[in-house]
Amino acid sequence: MNPPEVLAWRDGHIEALDQTALPHQVAVLRITTVDELVEAITRLAIRGAPVLGAAGALGVALAVHQGGREGWDGARLEAQLNRIADARPTAVNLRREVSAVAAHIPHGRQAVEAAALAVVEFATAASHQISRRGAAYLREACGPGRRLRVHTHCNTGALACLGWGTGLGVIRALHEQGVLEEVIVGETRPLLQGARLTCWELGQLGIEHRLAGDGAGPFLISQGLSDAVVVGADRVAANGDVANKIGTYGLALAAHRAGIPFLVAVPESTIDEATPTGAAIPIELRADSEITVPAAPAGTKALNYAFDVTPADLISAVVTEKRLIPNGQWLNVPVP
Amino acid sequence: MNPPEVLAWRDGHIEALDQTALPHQVAVLRITTVDELVEAITRLAIRGAPVLGAAGALGVALAVHQGGREGWDGARLEAQLNRIADARPTAVNLRREVSAVAAHIPHGRQAVEAAALAVVEFATAASHQISRRGAAYLREACGPGRRLRVHTHCNTGALACLGWGTGLGVIRALHEQGVLEEVIVGETRPLLQGARLTCWELGQLGIEHRLAGDGAGPFLISQGLSDAVVVGADRVAANGDVANKIGTYGLALAAHRAGIPFLVAVPESTIDEATPTGAAIPIELRADSEITVPAAPAGTKALNYAFDVTPADLISAVVTEKRLIPNGQWLNVPVP
Repeated sequence: MNPPEVLAWRDGHIEALDQTALPHQVAVLRITTVDELVEAITRLAIRGAPVLGAAGALGVALAVHQGGREGWDGARLEAQLNRIADARPTAVNLRREVSAVAAHIPHGRQAVEAAALAVVEFATAASHQISRRGAAYLREACGPGRRLRVHTHCNTGALACLGWGTGLGVIRALHEQGVLEEVIVGETRPLLQGARLTCWELGQLGIEHRLAGDGAGPFLISQGLSDAVVVGADRVAANGDVANKIGTYGLALAAHRAGIPFLVAVPESTIDEATPTGAAIPIELRADSEITVPAAPAGTKALNYAFDVTPADLISAVVTEKRLIPNGQWLNVPVP
Repeated sequence: MNPPEVLAWRDGHIEALDQTALPHQVAVLRITTVDELVEAITRLAIRGAPVLGAAGALGVALAVHQGGREGWDGARLEAQLNRIADARPTAVNLRREVSAVAAHIPHGRQAVEAAALAVVEFATAASHQISRRGAAYLREACGPGRRLRVHTHCNTGALACLGWGTGLGVIRALHEQGVLEEVIVGETRPLLQGARLTCWELGQLGIEHRLAGDGAGPFLISQGLSDAVVVGADRVAANGDVANKIGTYGLALAAHRAGIPFLVAVPESTIDEATPTGAAIPIELRADSEITVPAAPAGTKALNYAFDVTPADLISAVVTEKRLIPNGQWLNVPVP
């Protein structure tokens, strides 16, 4: 799979792989308006924190284009940018990249496009750095010379992050280095990004993997079936607490008790110094029907949080494109 | 719902509610042969450890009837009883009740039927005792005078256990005592017994409840959304380790960290002194397709354990129809 197929800028519009259609169909969305972009983000056709950041960046270029066609004034343009920034609440990347690229608006459309494309290119390069650094950490932490079995959750590959991805990028680096034995993938209810997307990406890459129910993850870890857990994150708070797809917290508890590494792989842009702790991270509460259809009796209410927060003390390390931050040393590892 | 509808003996055959058809359809199976019974148990139309015990008991009566019709010799009858006992591997109840009722075979068909019906009646009475004792424990453990929010997993009501059930019986007792605020139900992938069966039973009883994904459970507990966790069990080892539906272990880790009670409600028959620890409990590995269909790419392999094992140190108490065994006092609470 060629990364530009995940998300690309095509002469005034965005092309994006429709991630809701995978794995059964490879469909490309042609997005020409802010409305279409917001809709694609909301229904998770475009998803994954770093890809959301890139989509936010390209969204500014799209809004400037659409504004030019339709003669928007500054207030209208700003309102549309806010709609993009607010399309999903949890990942900090979306709002951050919208703001960063919007700062170029006074310099004209070409400057905006260049800034947006730079965000995409940077995300791709960062994923490679994260992948290599994370793989080196796991090889060291698990004991050199071993073939590793890695548990992961949700989707953190090219589909979510461009390039190699973050968590799945670490796994891909282990695979290319010949030290990966198997990946165990949590299906990631309710939207099944693990089953649909991660299994698809691992299959494309020829990486051995097995799919497990989300409830099974902690037990499989307790039984010694994994040597490490690797996940991405949607936001890392200033104290090292990590917001990620619901289900992450239970895996961290299990890894902690089993004494295996729990690695969080993120771009620096996911670390939000403005959020003091995990308690300050807004957790998206999604539609009941994602959980209740089709199995529950009609009218059943649900409690459908999309993310959870894992306290910093349960995390072995956070790896970014610039640094490796081990447990307990959060404040001692400056950005190089 | 009238308990005899879950499982009943009708003049030479078994009637059983088809639990795979719920909640959309209330269908009653008429089971007249051992083949039909084994098939109903294997595909989980009849399920839940105590109901499996009762089904095993009635299965002996059924085999004796069928053997009488078809002129089986002793070896043929014994082979058929073994098929029933082996239809599911994890719950100890099935094999135990088959053996117990089979001991009456030398005394004739009427003795066998009476013994089998006694198993059903005993399970019903035991569920009421478990329910009341468990509710009293939780009211005390959570602080008297509070309205409780309880997290549960899988299905442990009348459908699984006859009478009031075990875990769900405790919840029903809290409800009847006016001290239950809400139940949070884990959907219990892959077969969704929480979503399909527990939500249906709670709806029938008029008990407030919300459905959550299995991965969400540990996080919801960490956020203070539940005051206690109550589950049933398929087998309790001699050291207090508990085998229960996959997903239980992660809830126990979360309850332990949150400092809330984690109560296991079982009939005494679920406690297996012959199994020294959880490590000796065989864990059923079920078909990949339960996990991979319909979301994963074709050909994806799965790791589909049906149960997990929760170590005794994570469990606040085990409650049975005869005793309450608090954490750490496993060997000090004799059967009264």
